[in-house]
Amino acid sequence: MSASGPVGDAPSRVAGCRLWRLPSFRETRGELTVAEFGGHFPFAVQRMFFVHAVPQDQVRGDHAHRTTAQLLLALGGEVTVVVDDGAVRDEICLNDPSLGLLIPPGVWSLQQRFAPGTVLAVFCSEKYDPQEYIRDYREFLEHVGRGRRG
Amino acid sequence: MSASGPVGDAPSRVAGCRLWRLPSFRETRGELTVAEFGGHFPFAVQRMFFVHAVPQDQVRGDHAHRTTAQLLLALGGEVTVVVDDGAVRDEICLNDPSLGLLIPPGVWSLQQRFAPGTVLAVFCSEKYDPQEYIRDYREFLEHVGRGRRG
Repeated sequence: MSASGPVGDAPSRVAGCRLWRLPSFRETRGELTVAEFGGHFPFAVQRMFFVHAVPQDQVRGDHAHRTTAQLLLALGGEVTVVVDDGAVRDEICLNDPSLGLLIPPGVWSLQQRFAPGTVLAVFCSEKYDPQEYIRDYREFLEHVGRGRRG
Repeated sequence: MSASGPVGDAPSRVAGCRLWRLPSFRETRGELTVAEFGGHFPFAVQRMFFVHAVPQDQVRGDHAHRTTAQLLLALGGEVTVVVDDGAVRDEICLNDPSLGLLIPPGVWSLQQRFAPGTVLAVFCSEKYDPQEYIRDYREFLEHVGRGRRG
C-alpha cells in the first residue's frame, strides 16, 4: 500500500501543478485504487466526472477554471495532459492509477492521446458552474495577468 | 443528457438493490459520466475505490457490509454483479456508464466476469472500517436473520 499525498518532486514547471498519490494495491485479482474524501485529497471533492471511449485523435478539456481545482487520474490506460499557466506550458503523461495530477484554478489544460481503454477520472473542488470556465485562451491570458496591454 | 436518480423498474428481486442513473453524455469526442456529490447520489459519498485490470477468471468482493451502502458503476466495459440478501440471489450485468447499481447494507455481493478494460468505480456511504465487513457467508445469514436456528 502507498500513502496518499503530494509526490516529492513537482512534475511540472507550471504553477501549482503536481502529482498526488492515492493508495493503490496491485494483486493477482486486479488493481485497486482508493479515494477517501476528506482524507486523501487536497480539497473537498464536490463532484467528479469520468471520460472514456475517447478516440485517439480527439482532445478533451481545452479550457481553464476560475475557481475549481481538479485532480486527474488515469485508470487502465494512458493520457497526455497539457497544463499551461500563461507563462509555461508542460505535458505530463498519466499512466499510473496511483498517481493523480493536481491542477489548481487558473491553469489552462487539455487532455489528448488517450490510449484505447483509458478511463480518466476527474475529481473537482466545486460544483458545476458554466460561468466558472474560461474557454477563450486570450481571456485566460488576461485572467492570469499575461494579456497584451496598452 | 440524462437526469440522475433511481431507474423505474428494480433490476433485481434482492431487497433494496436497484439501478441508479447518473448524467451521461455521448459525443464524438468520447463519453462523459458526471457524479455530483449531494445531488446525484442516494447517500453522502465518503469514499470510493476503483477496481481495474481484473483477470476474467477472478472474483472480487464476495462479502457483505453491515452499514455501508454502495453504488457500483462500470466504465468502458462490462462486469457481472451477484447480489444476495440471504433469501434471493440475482445476477446483474453492468455495461452502461450511465447506470450504476445501488446495493444497500446487508446484501452479500461479488463481482465477476470482468471484460478486458473494464474499470469498476464503487462509491461508498461510509469511510473504510474493516469491522464493518462480513466475510463469512454463514455469519451473513445470521446477520440477516436467515441463519440456521435450534
